[in-house]
Amino acid sequence: MIRIKNARIMTLAGDRPFEITEGEVWTDGDKIAFVGVPTKEQLEGAQFEREICAMKNLIMPSFKNAHTHSAMTFLRSYADDLPLQEWLFNKVFPLEAKLTGEDVYWFTKLANLEYLTSGITASFDMYFELDDYVKACVEMGFRSVLCGAVSGDESNADRLEGYYLKYNGLDPLISFRLGFHAEYTCEKSLLERIAALAEKYKAPVYTHNSETAKEVRECIEKYGKTPTQLFDSLGIYNYGGGGFHCVHMSDEDMDIFKKRGVYAVHNPGSNTKLASGIANIRKMQEKGIGLALGTDGPASNNALDMFREMFLMTGLCKLRERDAAACDANSVLYAATVGGARAMGLDDCDTLEAGKQADLIMIDLSQPNMQPVNNLGKNIVYSGSKQNVKLTMCAGRVLYEDGKFVTADAQEIYKNVQARAERIQNEVKN
Amino acid sequence: MIRIKNARIMTLAGDRPFEITEGEVWTDGDKIAFVGVPTKEQLEGAQFEREICAMKNLIMPSFKNAHTHSAMTFLRSYADDLPLQEWLFNKVFPLEAKLTGEDVYWFTKLANLEYLTSGITASFDMYFELDDYVKACVEMGFRSVLCGAVSGDESNADRLEGYYLKYNGLDPLISFRLGFHAEYTCEKSLLERIAALAEKYKAPVYTHNSETAKEVRECIEKYGKTPTQLFDSLGIYNYGGGGFHCVHMSDEDMDIFKKRGVYAVHNPGSNTKLASGIANIRKMQEKGIGLALGTDGPASNNALDMFREMFLMTGLCKLRERDAAACDANSVLYAATVGGARAMGLDDCDTLEAGKQADLIMIDLSQPNMQPVNNLGKNIVYSGSKQNVKLTMCAGRVLYEDGKFVTADAQEIYKNVQARAERIQNEVKN
Repeated sequence: MIRIKNARIMTLAGDRPFEITEGEVWTDGDKIAFVGVPTKEQLEGAQFEREICAMKNLIMPSFKNAHTHSAMTFLRSYADDLPLQEWLFNKVFPLEAKLTGEDVYWFTKLANLEYLTSGITASFDMYFELDDYVKACVEMGFRSVLCGAVSGDESNADRLEGYYLKYNGLDPLISFRLGFHAEYTCEKSLLERIAALAEKYKAPVYTHNSETAKEVRECIEKYGKTPTQLFDSLGIYNYGGGGFHCVHMSDEDMDIFKKRGVYAVHNPGSNTKLASGIANIRKMQEKGIGLALGTDGPASNNALDMFREMFLMTGLCKLRERDAAACDANSVLYAATVGGARAMGLDDCDTLEAGKQADLIMIDLSQPNMQPVNNLGKNIVYSGSKQNVKLTMCAGRVLYEDGKFVTADAQEIYKNVQARAERIQNEVKN
Repeated sequence: MIRIKNARIMTLAGDRPFEITEGEVWTDGDKIAFVGVPTKEQLEGAQFEREICAMKNLIMPSFKNAHTHSAMTFLRSYADDLPLQEWLFNKVFPLEAKLTGEDVYWFTKLANLEYLTSGITASFDMYFELDDYVKACVEMGFRSVLCGAVSGDESNADRLEGYYLKYNGLDPLISFRLGFHAEYTCEKSLLERIAALAEKYKAPVYTHNSETAKEVRECIEKYGKTPTQLFDSLGIYNYGGGGFHCVHMSDEDMDIFKKRGVYAVHNPGSNTKLASGIANIRKMQEKGIGLALGTDGPASNNALDMFREMFLMTGLCKLRERDAAACDANSVLYAATVGGARAMGLDDCDTLEAGKQADLIMIDLSQPNMQPVNNLGKNIVYSGSKQNVKLTMCAGRVLYEDGKFVTADAQEIYKNVQARAERIQNEVKN
């Protein structure tokens, strides 16, 4: 067991999820064993392999990155400040075509390092070369939910089902959700097959949804329906799921999300950098739609930093509504932790309670941006930064502590990533 | 002399300000003595009190925070998610009324710590209790430009002139610029007196300008002119100066800024959190207006983090223009460093060149968010964070290095700030 003592604690559980208490968190294997103030008897009966003094710093659930394409780290700062179409067709696609499985392995490891520095212990990842991706995550002890990313015609549905059966149950850290790239890259026959898979497995389905105005407009032209209405009419959302981005949603779209229990995964950093627009978070909150936060991939953000996303979630909502009271800090904290876990189907990684997975972080309050301690939740959302992440634990293992990575050699990863990124750039030039 | 060797260098000077070279930076006293690759003779002739190996990390000019109210740290997270008027009148003003000079001293020290963690070496500060403020900065070796903040009737002009004469020349780290709070808090007679002071001292003048739509609308109702047109008609901008915020600027306002050499100080974090709007940065850039970046005070942001401001400057411009190509990374870097220095009148603190003030930072590239090194400028703006600030030097003194503060006891500051913030909150309640 690991004992974290002398801590401030925000469990995000129960009736007062944001309340700060003082006490201890014990972990046993991959689970939380105890949260609170132990009795003398409990302490005497416990055996600890390690004791961590939190020095009155805050222990809280880790962040969950509910939408990303991790391996795109190799494209970071390679193609920015470009119009969207030029970025995608002239820069991103030609380089992605050169990717090998081993490339994906190294580029994913780089992303996972960055997640850990930001207190993120799980990613909801949509990419390819899944075996290499999974290897990178499992080697680092990092939790990941793979999201299906099929596109094209119905022949690809079998592949999706194959992944679903292969990657669920492969490793305790890995799971797989039904998913497809987007309406505009899938034929209707494939969407129908995916709906049948959702029915067969009683499973939620995830996809990019209403990221740009163009996507929604063209879908309406083609089907007479928004993407959400189309998916719902086919039965794709019958067992819930999620939409990534959800920037351009109609009132009816939101009602479908609410009715079907579909999560809206908000990606404010990417929507900002790619000029896609500002999602209507206030209305989603009013309708009681489940919200999660994601960074999107590092080519379109370019950081993998949940603190940036949290400030943007509330800040952009305030700007959009012209109301400084919109989208309060607690609702943001909830989306970044509990909301993300539940959107990804990680219901046992959401809060700090005995029996839950030990996915937690320590927030360093001995930094100027966390002082004075008027309100810790607001400090985290409005002035917090990656610099405040003192420790990141996933499934009971400390993966990052005081700036050091425990399960990966960062310099080796940087070296490999640099060489491979340059090789790919050269391959495209030649 | 201090020798920084084995560095990547971005000088921000000359014809290729963003070019990355490899070499050394030497400082002598408060100045930069050498930038480049030294000859054997130069090395043999030099005597160094300290050698710092940069390990191929980046040395660049420090950031300049061109608009803030530092001592408002005590209000951080005390009053957020509130409508603007309620925030200001029910929360901010009653607590500010209880501030003592010694409070300002401690609250300023906390802000300065945070600036250092973000690579900021100079602040353009608008507040009161100036003696205590200056003491806090000088003790820490932190550079500051004080901005006049008078309001009310003409009787306050003498006080402004007194400050101008007192604080310019007091200490090499301190200077003072003519300034007033805002149009809406000053009588016309005071504005006329300030114009006369500008003329008398051939000096630039600074003020909050066009932060909210309401401010501009009411000024037009009162004077038939926007704030910028009013100030210009009175001669206030005859020797340049700056406007803080500049969110709601007309085309004519921008032309006045260009003609008079007035800087627009952009505060995207504050404008976001207070829902003030998005400044038209693209048009200002097209007109060639000088741009600088500032955090505004910690009650309205709440972070003092130039990395946040840089991402928001480009990101919000992209959103506003619906164009992912708007406001490229280099223009942001320039505003955060050179633009800020010049807006504040710190013309010798802008670039890395021999003879300039040694105000510089080291950016740690051995962090996952800086890898791969495709383009360092874009890395800093799009994925950089305070975590990448490895060293902050002001006037040739290292003030912050590897997470440690050299000229201040952070724990003592936290303790004093917490006790004083609580005292003030209790005084208001009782």
